[in-house]
Order: sequence, then C-alpha cells, then structure tokens
Amino acid sequence: MSHPHTKLTQATPARLEAFSDGVIAVIITIMVLELKVPLHDGLAGLMAVLPTIGLYALSFAFTGVYWVNHHHLVHRTDQADERTLYANLFFLFWLSLLPFFTEYVADKKMDSFSVMLYAGSMILTGGSFGLLRLVIGRHLRETGRLEREDAAAERKHVISLLMYLVAVACSLRYPHIALAIIGLVTAVWIIPSAKVNPIEHCVDVHAARREGFDDAQTGRLQ
Amino acid sequence: MSHPHTKLTQATPARLEAFSDGVIAVIITIMVLELKVPLHDGLAGLMAVLPTIGLYALSFAFTGVYWVNHHHLVHRTDQADERTLYANLFFLFWLSLLPFFTEYVADKKMDSFSVMLYAGSMILTGGSFGLLRLVIGRHLRETGRLEREDAAAERKHVISLLMYLVAVACSLRYPHIALAIIGLVTAVWIIPSAKVNPIEHCVDVHAARREGFDDAQTGRLQ
Amino acid sequence: MSHPHTKLTQATPARLEAFSDGVIAVIITIMVLELKVPLHDGLAGLMAVLPTIGLYALSFAFTGVYWVNHHHLVHRTDQADERTLYANLFFLFWLSLLPFFTEYVADKKMDSFSVMLYAGSMILTGGSFGLLRLVIGRHLRETGRLEREDAAAERKHVISLLMYLVAVACSLRYPHIALAIIGLVTAVWIIPSAKVNPIEHCVDVHAARREGFDDAQTGRLQ
Amino acid sequence: MSHPHTKLTQATPARLEAFSDGVIAVIITIMVLELKVPLHDGLAGLMAVLPTIGLYALSFAFTGVYWVNHHHLVHRTDQADERTLYANLFFLFWLSLLPFFTEYVADKKMDSFSVMLYAGSMILTGGSFGLLRLVIGRHLRETGRLEREDAAAERKHVISLLMYLVAVACSLRYPHIALAIIGLVTAVWIIPSAKVNPIEHCVDVHAARREGFDDAQTGRLQ
Repeated sequence: MSHPHTKLTQATPARLEAFSDGVIAVIITIMVLELKVPLHDGLAGLMAVLPTIGLYALSFAFTGVYWVNHHHLVHRTDQADERTLYANLFFLFWLSLLPFFTEYVADKKMDSFSVMLYAGSMILTGGSFGLLRLVIGRHLRETGRLEREDAAAERKHVISLLMYLVAVACSLRYPHIALAIIGLVTAVWIIPSAKVNPIEHCVDVHAARREGFDDAQTGRLQ
Repeated sequence: MSHPHTKLTQATPARLEAFSDGVIAVIITIMVLELKVPLHDGLAGLMAVLPTIGLYALSFAFTGVYWVNHHHLVHRTDQADERTLYANLFFLFWLSLLPFFTEYVADKKMDSFSVMLYAGSMILTGGSFGLLRLVIGRHLRETGRLEREDAAAERKHVISLLMYLVAVACSLRYPHIALAIIGLVTAVWIIPSAKVNPIEHCVDVHAARREGFDDAQTGRLQ
Repeated sequence: MSHPHTKLTQATPARLEAFSDGVIAVIITIMVLELKVPLHDGLAGLMAVLPTIGLYALSFAFTGVYWVNHHHLVHRTDQADERTLYANLFFLFWLSLLPFFTEYVADKKMDSFSVMLYAGSMILTGGSFGLLRLVIGRHLRETGRLEREDAAAERKHVISLLMYLVAVACSLRYPHIALAIIGLVTAVWIIPSAKVNPIEHCVDVHAARREGFDDAQTGRLQ
Repeated sequence: MSHPHTKLTQATPARLEAFSDGVIAVIITIMVLELKVPLHDGLAGLMAVLPTIGLYALSFAFTGVYWVNHHHLVHRTDQADERTLYANLFFLFWLSLLPFFTEYVADKKMDSFSVMLYAGSMILTGGSFGLLRLVIGRHLRETGRLEREDAAAERKHVISLLMYLVAVACSLRYPHIALAIIGLVTAVWIIPSAKVNPIEHCVDVHAARREGFDDAQTGRLQ
C-alpha cells in the first residue's frame, strides 16, 4: 500500500501542540498516582516515602524540561505532515514509559538494574526527541528559519545524552551516583533560565549569544 | 421529545477537536498505568515484562494511527452538528475500551480468547470511525470538499478491518500470529509516511497520487 | 474580605472551555480504569464483566450528553466572570464523582443503595448544571442572546431530573429498572440528533422548531 | 553551559495556558480515583466514605481556586520566557502532590501528622504560586499593566498562607480544626464571587473597589 492522500497530510501544527500538551500533562501528573502512602505513622512514614518523592520530582523535572524544549521546537513550524506527526508520537511513546520506569526504580528500591533501565529510557526518550528535531529541522531549513540557536540546543542535547550514558555505566556499581548525574543534567537545563536576568538579557543579547557559543564550543562536540 | 434547539447545534469543530485530543491523550497515556513492575529483580524481571511492553507499544501505535486519521478527517469540516458530536463520542467510547482490552490480553497471557476480544474491539473501534467518516463525509460532499484521497483512505480502512477479521479468526488457534497481523496493519499505516520524501513528494504529487490509486486498486476492493 | 479585583475577572471563555474539556475528557476516560479483568478465562469471564461494561457505557453516555450540552451553553457567552468560573467548577465537581459512583454500583453488584446513590449523583450533577445555566443565562439575557431554544433545552433538563428522581424511588425495590430509566433518559438526549436528517432539517427549520415546542409543551412543565 | 538560544524563548503564553489547564484538569480529576468504595453495604458504607468525600471536595475546591487565580494571572501576559515556564512548572509540581497528600490524610484517618503535611503542602503550593506571580508581575510592571488589583490579590494570598501556617500549628492538637481553617480560607476565596451581583458590581465598581481596599487594609499587612 502506498501513500495517496497527499493533501490530507498538510495539517496545522496547532493540533499537534494541543495533543502533545495533553499527553505530556497526563504523563507528568499520573506519576503521582504511584506515590503510595507509607504504612508507618508520623515522621517515620514521611521519611520512608521521601526518596520516592525525590524520584518523582526528578521525573517531573525531566518531563518539564522536555515540554519546554518541545514547545521551542514545535511552535516555529507552520506545517505538520504525517512524518512529523508520527515522529512526535514516537517521542511521546518513550516519554510515556517514564512513569513506569520511575515506579520500577521506586519498587526495586533504586537498585542497579532499575536505575540502569531508568537512565536507558531517558536515552531513548532523548534519542526520539533528536529524531523529531531532525524531521522538524528539515522543514525549518527549507524555509530558512533554522537558526544558530538550534545548533546550540542540539549540541546541549547530545551532551545530555552522553551524560545519561555515563549514568547507565555508573548505575552498575553506584546507582545513587547515577541518579545524581541525571539530576545534575536536569538542573543544567533549568538553572540558567532561572538565573539570567531577562532585562539585561534583552540588551546584551548578542554578547550573551556569542558567549553561549564559545561555551558550547569548549565542549568540542561536532 | 423532539429536537427543537436547531441553532444551538451549529457549533465550531474547534472544541470537538480539543475534546477528542484530550480523550485520546488520556487513553494513550493511562495504558502505561497497567504496566506492572515485575517481581523478579534484574534482567529476568525485564524479560518477564517485555511482552507486556510490546503489547502496550502496539496499543499506543494503534491509538496514534487513529489520532492521525481523526486529525485528517475533522480538520476540514467547518461545522460540527450534534450528529457529528455523538458519532465522535461513539468512536471515542470504543477507543476508550482499548486500555481495558490491552490489560485483558496481558493478564490472560495472550490466550486465544483475550486476543480475539482485543482484535474484536479494534473492529468495533474501526467501524465506529467509519461511521464518523460517513457523517462528516456527507458534510464534505455537500460543500464539495470530498476529495479522491478520501476514497483511498476509506478503502485502506476497509482493508484494515478485514485484516482485523482475519486476526480474530487466527486468534482461535494462533493468538501470537493474530497479534502479528494487528502489528502489521499498524505498521502499514505508519511506515509509508516515514519513508516518503516530502520534497520529492510535493513535486511529484500527481504521479504519486496516481501510483497510490493504482496500488490501492490492485487490492480490488469496491 | 471583599472583592476588589474587578478587572481581573473579565476573562475570555476560551480557557473556561479548554479547562472543562480537559476535566470532562479525564472523567470520561479514567472510568475505564475501574473495569477489572475477570478472573475466569474465556466466555465466562467476558460474561462476568459485561454488566460492568454496560454500566461504564451508561456513565460514558451520560458524561457525553453533558459535554454536548456544556458545549452548547458555553460557546455563546463572550464573557466568563468569576461567578461563572466557580459555577462551572461546582458542576465539574459533581460530574467528577461519577467514576466513583459508577465503581460503587459495579462493586456492590447493582444493589438498591448503590443505584440510588448513582441516580442521586446524577440529580446533583444535573442540578449544578442548571445553576451554571442560570448564571450564564443571565449574561445571555442581558446581551439579548437568550433564545427560545434555551427554554426548550431547560424544560428537557427539568424533565430529565424528574426522571432521575423516579429512578431514585424505583431503585429501592427494582434497581435494574432504575438503571433502565437512566439509560432511557440518556437515549432520549442522543437519539433525536442521530435520527434527524440534517439536510431536511435546514430547510424545514421553522416547522421543526415549532413542532419541537408543541411537543415539549405537551409535557406541561412550567 | 550558558544560555545561548534567546530567540527560542520568546514563546506565546497560549501553550503555557493550555499545558497548565491540562495538568490542573488531570490533578483535579484523578483525585477521585483515590475514593475507595466502602466495604459495608447501604447507609453504613456511605457514612464511612463521607469524610473522605468531604476531603476530596476540599482538595477539589483548593485546586479550583488556584486554577481561577492562575487564569487571572497568566491571561494578561503576552510573553512567556523560559523563566516563566519553569516557575509555572515549579508551581504545578507542588500542586500535583495534592492528590498524594489528600490520600495521605484519608489513609491516616485525618491524624495530626497527615493534616500537618496536607496544610504544609498547601503552603508550598501557595509559595510557588507567589514565585510565579513575582516572575509574571515583573513583566506586567515593565509593560505598565500591573494594576492595583494585583496588590490586593497578593495581599489576600499572603493572608491565606498565614492561615495555612495557623492550620499547621493547629494540626498538632486539633487536626479537625486545622481542616476547618483550610476549608474557611477556601470558602473566603469562592464566596465573594458567588454573592456579588455582577450588574450592580459594574455600576458601583469604583465604590466596591475602594471598599475592597479598605477592607484589605484592615488586615494590616504591609
């Protein structure tokens, strides 16, 4: 069977965004259903459940970072063909497994294997996001809207995936350090936006951008 | 009781889309809640849960394909009367049972009966989508926006339903082959969009379309 | 504490719709999580779960009817003040209890008390929807957009609530008949839209409307 | 790693609203999944579950009030930079824990410690909302859209947080009184909008506003 319905595929990206928002909103929220009220009363109970809450916070932050990046990526395309829709669904599939792997880690009390799976699922999520970036990036390049910032964001993503790979290796011996690495990568995505002063930012935008590139190039990727 | 509120029913399809997106987003995501962390530690545990993850992936892909097709169908109507709203709800009802039947198959360890139910629910989902296509198609025909591509998409749908019927028959003896057939049908919907080069596609659109029709006609349906 | 932030409350109804759609989409979909895979294999298992599926279908249809009516009610207002937002939340609260009362009826094997609660929750949902209609209706009246159709829809609602009251009474002795009454009321909301031919409908709109009013007035309510 | 993708961060707040609506819709609705059907039949069962339903209603109302306030806050910004997105996610994180702490209180039969956690989580949710208000308020101030009403709303928020602090202290001895205080604070947010007559309101808006400020100033905060 080939692909005859060409015109049908010229959809607006509005519904792509709406659907992705819905899926990510459910993913980020149903994870909390996996938090189980501890058996013990009082402080002992809270202490017992705190590591799981921390793990939930990590998965929440991870999903949040991807939502922000998805937002940046998608809102500039003015076209969503079938290939983009399916690449997006592929990314959402891997992301939708995060609540499961989060529960996995919590249930197995953060043992080596479960943390390895957790970090591994993040690599697959990140990889599928890279695929989506590739598909949408092609559209942007064709219409001349691919910007230097995209290259920088891509580079940051590649570094993140390499860090998750380090976390996978670490998890064999030191699962807690592996989780710390994952937390660090997430923090690196969030903290700069929190720190930067938006007013100065607007004024010194070219300086900041140049500095950003220098910084990124120090990492010597590509 | 008759139907006096005529004007009230002339609603925009925007909210129809938004609501459908919400429902499909929840359907596609809550399925993951049915993935249970295995009892065994390490690789043995992962191996035990892998078939269920595969099944989840299949249901996710099935729902994704319907979302893409729903998207194509609905975004061209500029009117959503009550009949359309209820036909849409009827489709969403059958789709919403998919997480239940997915869990059914997983719980019953993919036995004949559960796989038959699973394939059967897909026929009902597909049939109710056909009904929605009929209702919306009438609007499109009236306003002259029904295109040749719609006929091709419809034909592809009919073939898919026949394949699910084959899967139902297969499931009595060979439930795993039945699941493979379902997976194949899903792949046939996804793969062409992934393969086709959108640039050539735009240029050779008429050739591609003609080829598509020839292809479809080889199947000798209608 | 009084109410000083007047200007802040002049919100657009777009987000009211979006939020309501989200809540109703979750309500209508998470109910399926309460369907439990039966212990028995094969047909016996399906038979055991069929009444629960029927009950789920009833709750799904009930929610669907309210979504359609909510849609009709809200999309004509061009203003959503705080009072409207809270009236809407009050309605959503009662509707959000439906999955719980559906599970209640299923768990208690459709006994008298659980069916009474189920019908009772529908009266409260319907009553809170009436309140929302009152609040929004006032806006429509002020801006001269309240139509005769609204009166007809309101009358139909009052009759429905009376029928649910009959169901409550019935449930004491004949819970299954009570469920049948609830099913009948739901069907009366859905069937006319399915039957009526939209083409004739557009032509004979005035005749149909007049007929509708005569019909409704035969019921002699108000 | 610095922050080179400046242009990418200039997103519209539409998707921020859509995503927040999705998350809040899921939060407010999945709480009902924690309501367990009681073991006892008849009225005894309903009585046993009523306190939990009341608790659910309280958490629903709390979330509803935050949705309304979030709505007021966000719909006036015309810009959503990364800092706003992350401040919003931080708020949604704390709000997403509410279903967990609601279940906590229900499971622990409203004991001192669980009620303290519940009130404590409300302070953290309120605090993170204050942070979001700060971030967005800065944008509003820069573009001259910060209004006197914002100050009043902020003051009301600070008072609410202080009341939750009183509830935390109360919970050590009288958890039920602590819950009553939380209920009172929620009622104070909802009732004025329900009482005020919108028609008079529009006419006497300046009087009402002045009165509002006087009222608030009686509280002597700031």
